[in-house]
Amino acid sequence: MKADFSRLMAKRGLDAFIVGGGEHANSARYYLTNGAHVTGGYVVQARDGEPLVVVNGMEIEEARKSGHRCLTYGDLGYGELYREHGAQQASVLMYGRLLEQVGLASGRVGLYGVDDINATIERVQRLRAHYAQYEFVGEDSPTLFDEAQRTKDAAELARIRSVAERTNAVVTQVWDFISSHRSDVSGRVVDAAGQPLTVGAVKRFARRALLDVVLEDTGMIFAPGRDGAFPHSRGDDPTELLMGVPIVFDFSPRELGGGYYHDMTRTWCIGHVPPHVQALYDDVMTAFDLALETYALGKPTHTLQEAVLDFFEAQGHPTARTHPNTMEGYVHSLGHGIGLNIHEAPSMHHLKREDVFEAGNVVTIEPGLYYPDRAVGVRVEDSFIVAEDGQLISITPFKKDLLLPLSGSA
Amino acid sequence: MKADFSRLMAKRGLDAFIVGGGEHANSARYYLTNGAHVTGGYVVQARDGEPLVVVNGMEIEEARKSGHRCLTYGDLGYGELYREHGAQQASVLMYGRLLEQVGLASGRVGLYGVDDINATIERVQRLRAHYAQYEFVGEDSPTLFDEAQRTKDAAELARIRSVAERTNAVVTQVWDFISSHRSDVSGRVVDAAGQPLTVGAVKRFARRALLDVVLEDTGMIFAPGRDGAFPHSRGDDPTELLMGVPIVFDFSPRELGGGYYHDMTRTWCIGHVPPHVQALYDDVMTAFDLALETYALGKPTHTLQEAVLDFFEAQGHPTARTHPNTMEGYVHSLGHGIGLNIHEAPSMHHLKREDVFEAGNVVTIEPGLYYPDRAVGVRVEDSFIVAEDGQLISITPFKKDLLLPLSGSA
Repeated sequence: MKADFSRLMAKRGLDAFIVGGGEHANSARYYLTNGAHVTGGYVVQARDGEPLVVVNGMEIEEARKSGHRCLTYGDLGYGELYREHGAQQASVLMYGRLLEQVGLASGRVGLYGVDDINATIERVQRLRAHYAQYEFVGEDSPTLFDEAQRTKDAAELARIRSVAERTNAVVTQVWDFISSHRSDVSGRVVDAAGQPLTVGAVKRFARRALLDVVLEDTGMIFAPGRDGAFPHSRGDDPTELLMGVPIVFDFSPRELGGGYYHDMTRTWCIGHVPPHVQALYDDVMTAFDLALETYALGKPTHTLQEAVLDFFEAQGHPTARTHPNTMEGYVHSLGHGIGLNIHEAPSMHHLKREDVFEAGNVVTIEPGLYYPDRAVGVRVEDSFIVAEDGQLISITPFKKDLLLPLSGSA
Repeated sequence: MKADFSRLMAKRGLDAFIVGGGEHANSARYYLTNGAHVTGGYVVQARDGEPLVVVNGMEIEEARKSGHRCLTYGDLGYGELYREHGAQQASVLMYGRLLEQVGLASGRVGLYGVDDINATIERVQRLRAHYAQYEFVGEDSPTLFDEAQRTKDAAELARIRSVAERTNAVVTQVWDFISSHRSDVSGRVVDAAGQPLTVGAVKRFARRALLDVVLEDTGMIFAPGRDGAFPHSRGDDPTELLMGVPIVFDFSPRELGGGYYHDMTRTWCIGHVPPHVQALYDDVMTAFDLALETYALGKPTHTLQEAVLDFFEAQGHPTARTHPNTMEGYVHSLGHGIGLNIHEAPSMHHLKREDVFEAGNVVTIEPGLYYPDRAVGVRVEDSFIVAEDGQLISITPFKKDLLLPLSGSA
């Protein structure tokens, strides 16, 4: 959490960091500015210091919503630098002024945020050529921000719980919406007028329901049949829903305009459940329960993945451990951290073995089985908070029924 | 446009490029994959060659929607590399395999896309240390992609026109929604039940209307009074709308799930227009018309900005040219290119003087005047296509009325 920055910076020998880049998908910027909507600029912070936000003058009022000290490019003389030195050198000279503002005359400076790869390469070359007194460094994962964001403080957990509650309410509405349909003679799911229900219509319904609770969709998967057998296939809008065809519904809304995510998956069969789908589903649910039984505070996270791998392999499923490039069976990791990023620390992958469960983690558990040749995928996912007392608390209460019966009430 | 890649790569001495990074805000990836929803991986292309898309096996079906040749990490042996060499070195070795796949044994390789700044720094160091046969380079703006995307082909223009039509239809709905209200004795805008209309309610209405036409909001500005006097202040949800207070409504939706943008701004006064607002509005509209008169195919883009600067300065307004760090008067540039990015080439800034108007450009024209101390901002913005015959064609037909009268019909 943010309170860890001084310690985590000391561990890395960092005297300061500068977060740059744009607004979108830039969780380091969001984290530091408390979600202020600034489209560019910098956040600079010295070890043991507070963040300083520097933005285009047009965005100063939004920047102030961060609660931090804010300055404009103009306050740092950017306009004059630009006219005298051109865009590239002006940008280099700004870094020195940023660091002076937080009292750093020399030292090691970590560069973070999200930006164009090509621009980062050029900028770092210029910074290193210009400044003898500063060492500008990058960092591999797990980074300063990976480690800070891996545990959430009370304010973050309150927001995460709220997103979870609203997401579960929307899933209830989606279930009821589908359930209100009926089937026709050819096994299609249709409305009262006989019009087929499509993937696109379900997604549209879900997106509207999200807006009503001030959330937004970020790449919802609603994937029937063979599409659901590829874990990241999102489903095609024109696809009509059919009775007895399993649908993977992986739903990861976040706060409207950017912010904290929830992540959950259900697999639904409308009307009836074919036996081969039920068999896969039972294996997935056994794996799910096994993961929860294996969990303990302080335990390496990959032990849960390994318990699930052992089980699936014993059941005869190919896995990413027995068949590294497999597209069948259990092809992904058991779960991941979630917060301002849909995927963040801790990892549960069996090949990434650094993480242990800590209080303040928020993680998903999401075993799945995929057989493209049989046009079936099954995945079930909840999100969990690791509480202060070590309990793993689900924040995804929605029922895990595989069978979604039709009421034809609509 | 994409047809220019060979020429633009030759001009830069690039034998290939590799686009990496994530899905969000990564317009280079979107551009090359035709909007396929892949969350990571690479697109690699040799000069005079076709794109190759390489993704996690889970995303192969989505990747294929690009219409290009697609491979999985597994196809390139990533799993084995990971186990043998660890994550960092495996990633380095993958770059060599990507380049082999497009037939490049040695040469100069541009790196593009959007990624974590810290990760880019580390990755480039490792690539340069490992490969003697390849030179990995970044690039400052205007980049290969800036130049390619600066002109749109027919398929892109068709999508851009469609986004424009749908956006204008939504603005009509927003106007009608506000207009259906009435005023109360204290000058608030209220519904039939006397409940005040807020910024949040208008934004909610607009976001729902966007979903209905398969668009999504990306940082809408609906900023009354002093908020509107800061060009990028977005407006606060609880703010109640008041009669006669100018509102800056800057609306930049894009295709749902990522894609092409439209960008337009209107300034509205509900019920009546105070004379000082009308005076600023008249200056802004004169500047708008002046920009259109100044336009010609092949002309440097900054000449429009300079015509507007000359006019505003003659009217006594401070500008970013006379007062470089001003927060009052005309504080920004006249316009910008728009496409898969909300801001892209060509620029119209008076300090960026490289661009000329070319057929296939899509640009905004958006003069504005801002006086925070008087709590008033005025901006009017349309988007335009530069047609084959050189005509500058507005794709933002919505009326430019300043006065939004209330009908009280709701």
